[in-house]
Amino acid sequence: MKILLKLMYLGENYCGWQVQENGKTVQGELCRAFREICGKDVRVTGCSRTDSGVHAKEYFCTAETDGIFGIPCGKLPLAVNAHLDRDISVRSAKEVPKDFHARYDVKYKTYEYVIDNGVTHDPFLEKRSWHVPKKLSETVMDEAAKIFVGEKNFAAFMASGSKVTDTVRRITEASVRREGENVIFRVTGNGFLYNMVRIMTGTLVEVSLGKKSVKDIASALDCGDRKKAGMTAPAEGLYLVSVVY
Amino acid sequence: MKILLKLMYLGENYCGWQVQENGKTVQGELCRAFREICGKDVRVTGCSRTDSGVHAKEYFCTAETDGIFGIPCGKLPLAVNAHLDRDISVRSAKEVPKDFHARYDVKYKTYEYVIDNGVTHDPFLEKRSWHVPKKLSETVMDEAAKIFVGEKNFAAFMASGSKVTDTVRRITEASVRREGENVIFRVTGNGFLYNMVRIMTGTLVEVSLGKKSVKDIASALDCGDRKKAGMTAPAEGLYLVSVVY
Repeated sequence: MKILLKLMYLGENYCGWQVQENGKTVQGELCRAFREICGKDVRVTGCSRTDSGVHAKEYFCTAETDGIFGIPCGKLPLAVNAHLDRDISVRSAKEVPKDFHARYDVKYKTYEYVIDNGVTHDPFLEKRSWHVPKKLSETVMDEAAKIFVGEKNFAAFMASGSKVTDTVRRITEASVRREGENVIFRVTGNGFLYNMVRIMTGTLVEVSLGKKSVKDIASALDCGDRKKAGMTAPAEGLYLVSVVY
Repeated sequence: MKILLKLMYLGENYCGWQVQENGKTVQGELCRAFREICGKDVRVTGCSRTDSGVHAKEYFCTAETDGIFGIPCGKLPLAVNAHLDRDISVRSAKEVPKDFHARYDVKYKTYEYVIDNGVTHDPFLEKRSWHVPKKLSETVMDEAAKIFVGEKNFAAFMASGSKVTDTVRRITEASVRREGENVIFRVTGNGFLYNMVRIMTGTLVEVSLGKKSVKDIASALDCGDRKKAGMTAPAEGLYLVSVVY
C-alpha cells in the first residue's frame, strides 16, 4: 500500500529532508513517526532533497508498506502529526498506485526565495529569509531573471563538487517581485541542480548591486563555469512552494 | 534628550514587554543594549505592556537620558540591534520633545489576533497563532464583533484580579476577516484592559462554535461579569500592529 502525503515544514531545525546518520531530518522524523504508529518500518520517499534550513510550503512524499497501514487514510495526517514536532505538518494523505514515484513523477516544482530588503531586519523573518540591507531593484532583477527561462545548461549554477553530469534543465517561469520590504524570486522548472535556486538568487542580487551584469549571466550559462555565476544565497530564504505531478 | 524608537518583536522568547526580576523581557533587553552602547543607564518607556508571548509588528518606546546619547539618531537602530537578539528589531529613531510620553500620548492602538483555522496546523504559524481546527465562520464572527464598537464598559472583558477601576474604553473598529486558512480579528481602540483582546477573541470563537450568542456578549457588556464573557485566547496569536500618537 502506498500513500501520498502532502507536508509543510519549517526547515530551521532540520538538516534538510534526507535521512542522515547525525542530525535530525524531516524524512527521519517521518520514518520514526510511522514506526511509532504502525509498529513497523515504512518506506518514505520524498519529492526532492532539500538542504539544511530550507523550508517547504508544499512538499510531497510517499509512505509505503507491504501490507496496510492499520489506520484509515483520512486519519493519517492528525495521527502522524501527533508524533511529530510542530514545525512539520502532514496536511493531507491519499492512496496512490504502487508504481507512483514521489520524485520521478514530478513534472514541475516551484521555489520562492525571500529576501528581507529592509535597512533593519524583520524579526518575523529571522531564519526565514536572507537579510540584504542594501536597496535592491526588483525591476532590474526581474528583467535579469528572464534569461533563466528555457531549456538551458545550468552547469554554472550548480554547487561545485556535485557529481551530476546531465546539467540541462527546463525553466518555465522566473520572476522577481516586491512585497513591502521583501523581494521575492520565484522560479518554476522540471528539475533543479544542487544549490541552483540559491546560486540564481545570489547572482540576481549581485546584478542589482552592480557587481554582475546580465551579460555575465549569459556567459556563465554559455561556458558552464561555476565561478562565472554569483554567490550562493543562504539556505534559510528558500521555500519549496509547489509541486506538480 | 528623548528619542522615540519604533520596534518590531517576536514575543515567543520574551516574558512580555515590562522588566521583570526573573525572565527576559523586551524592555529589559533594550535597557541592557543602551547601557552597553552609551555606558550609562537609559530610561526606556513603552507604549503598552504586552503579555508574555504577545508579538508586536509596530511598537513604540522612548529612550531618555539627562545628557546626549553619544551616537546620532539615524545610527541608533543599527547600533541598538547589534546588541539585541534577532527577534527584536529597532526600525527607526527620532528625537521627541521632553514632555512626550510613549504611553499616555497614544491616541489609538490596533491589535490583530491570528487564528490558524486549518484542520491540521500550519508549522509557519507555530507560536504565532492559535490553532482552532474546527471550522469558524468569519461572517458570524465579524457580525458579532460589531457589538464591541463604541464607548462601552468592558469590565467583563478584563482578566479577573486586575485592579483597574475605570473599565470604559472606546473601540472604533472591530472586524473579522479570512485570509486563506487564517481567521483574523482586528480591533482598534483608545485603550485596552488586561487580556481584553484575548477575551474578545475567545468570545468570538465561542460565538462561531455556537457556545455563546451575540445576546450573551450584550449581557456580558451590560453586567460587567467576567464569567459571562468567553474564554481567554492564548497569547501567542496576538499582535500589536499599529500605534497612533
